[in-house]
Amino acid sequence: MTSIAMIEAAAGRLKGHARRTPLLSSPFLDEIAGKRVLVKPECLQVTGSFKFRGGWSAVSALSPAVRARGVIAFSSGNHAQGVAAAAKGHGVASVIIMPSDAPALKIANTRALGAEVVLYDRSGEDRDALGAKLSAERGLTLIKPFDEPQVIAGQGTTGLEIAEQAMDIGVAEADVLVCCGGGGLTSGIALALEAKAPGLRARPVEPEGFDDVARSLASGTIQRNARLSGSLCDAIITPQPGNITFPILNRLCGPGLAVSEDEALRAMALAFLRLKIVLEPGGAVALAAALFHPAAVEGDAVIAVASGGNVDAEVFRMALERFA
Amino acid sequence: MTSIAMIEAAAGRLKGHARRTPLLSSPFLDEIAGKRVLVKPECLQVTGSFKFRGGWSAVSALSPAVRARGVIAFSSGNHAQGVAAAAKGHGVASVIIMPSDAPALKIANTRALGAEVVLYDRSGEDRDALGAKLSAERGLTLIKPFDEPQVIAGQGTTGLEIAEQAMDIGVAEADVLVCCGGGGLTSGIALALEAKAPGLRARPVEPEGFDDVARSLASGTIQRNARLSGSLCDAIITPQPGNITFPILNRLCGPGLAVSEDEALRAMALAFLRLKIVLEPGGAVALAAALFHPAAVEGDAVIAVASGGNVDAEVFRMALERFA
Repeated sequence: MTSIAMIEAAAGRLKGHARRTPLLSSPFLDEIAGKRVLVKPECLQVTGSFKFRGGWSAVSALSPAVRARGVIAFSSGNHAQGVAAAAKGHGVASVIIMPSDAPALKIANTRALGAEVVLYDRSGEDRDALGAKLSAERGLTLIKPFDEPQVIAGQGTTGLEIAEQAMDIGVAEADVLVCCGGGGLTSGIALALEAKAPGLRARPVEPEGFDDVARSLASGTIQRNARLSGSLCDAIITPQPGNITFPILNRLCGPGLAVSEDEALRAMALAFLRLKIVLEPGGAVALAAALFHPAAVEGDAVIAVASGGNVDAEVFRMALERFA
Repeated sequence: MTSIAMIEAAAGRLKGHARRTPLLSSPFLDEIAGKRVLVKPECLQVTGSFKFRGGWSAVSALSPAVRARGVIAFSSGNHAQGVAAAAKGHGVASVIIMPSDAPALKIANTRALGAEVVLYDRSGEDRDALGAKLSAERGLTLIKPFDEPQVIAGQGTTGLEIAEQAMDIGVAEADVLVCCGGGGLTSGIALALEAKAPGLRARPVEPEGFDDVARSLASGTIQRNARLSGSLCDAIITPQPGNITFPILNRLCGPGLAVSEDEALRAMALAFLRLKIVLEPGGAVALAAALFHPAAVEGDAVIAVASGGNVDAEVFRMALERFA
């Protein structure tokens, strides 16, 4: 189980490797929301998303002998890049198992970050069997994307920074909105805030139609999404909250929020105009909730974690064309 | 004359108001340049450019009685927003004199930041006479855009941060490329580096065809641009280096560099893809020089100041369409 001591230890291991992202704001965003809006831009993190924190935390927590044999991860997206960069930074091998129909650019990027990319055929091959075989043959350690205590500890370092940065500017009570897939980032932040800034409350934000976490929190038991495709917010679409993350979310987080795809795109356009940062749709849902659902957020200040910026130019241009 | 003591005093006044921007990097950019590329993203500064530093420094340096009467500036761009935001932060009035054909959005933004915008007709009215009349009537203090010691001191705080951040990551010798108009940012950074990181050398970067500073440095005397319009890099097009800034540049800076407009747009696309930041063309020329003119830059590391991100969505989309 992830504890605040584990999160603080992860912060120590991340020092000099992960970036301490700033806390951004704009009077124009405050006016839209009718309250003070503070944005934690994890798109500026190494590899363009918060996933580097968890990847580095997990790889650095391995014993040297185990780490030297290398790591393995399943991902076509941000977790792939986070783990690949973390392994490279430790001088160890990484194998990332990606579907053969993943975008060529993401495959190329993951390779360029030093990973050995193993492609599998979604229709004909068993991904887990392939991973188990490679792990067994080569002694690779699997780094799970969210349901893993050291990954949660790494993501929680975002929460340590939020606690300090909010205190510096006098914000002691606020909702902290977090873009939420499997719940690794949200649960890590919630644990950090519980210890360091109990007046700040983490709340997950999801795309409408993919609100498994919100429904799980409302019912008190794990709920699944009805479907897993058809959203521009691909980075945060997961089947259900994790067995490790959900009890943390359930104990510490406020009610979940959901935003439409158009609201996510509008938030991307406003982040471009007012904050000068690049967000992907799944990394913009928390800001969208802060801006467009202010009545659902308590208090006169709100903190939104902008979790990633790995977006195709075409999607970004579309967001600007429609909403900037 | 601006001294390191003035820059450090400005840093003290800016604390809690300006942002300490991070130092960003990407292995993909390193590969393009063939050396380590470090980017100081002042697009993330309050108001979207470094100009807030100089505006805040100048307004905060006024005596309370003088400041209370308000400030005035001529600008249609980033300096307007920097001064307006600085005046608002001090609770004093600002008057910004803008051409009546300035983009409606920039006029609206400057007003939204609390300024009284006075429009003048470029063809029929004398801007300076209008400003002098308003200053005399209302006791407003003129905040010049670059040729003003306290403005240079404010911009120089960027250099203090670069000196510290470069030392933290072990970069003691490098060229520091700076997007350069009138030379306020470049001269301020040069003074800060002289005192705090003498192995780092500031070098101005301009658009091809508007390289007055490079030619002035080469000849040792102030040279003018042949024309003042027709560049997408509007933020850094000025007639000539300042009478205060030029002697500093001439004493401390290495040779100037010039990049093409297409190189600036390519740098914007790469900053989008690899750093997740939004740059305007004039704020991207230093990164363009770092990436595409590596032979003109000494050493195995280079620092590029990305000075601003106030770009129209249309121009940004064009940069992505052509180069992302």
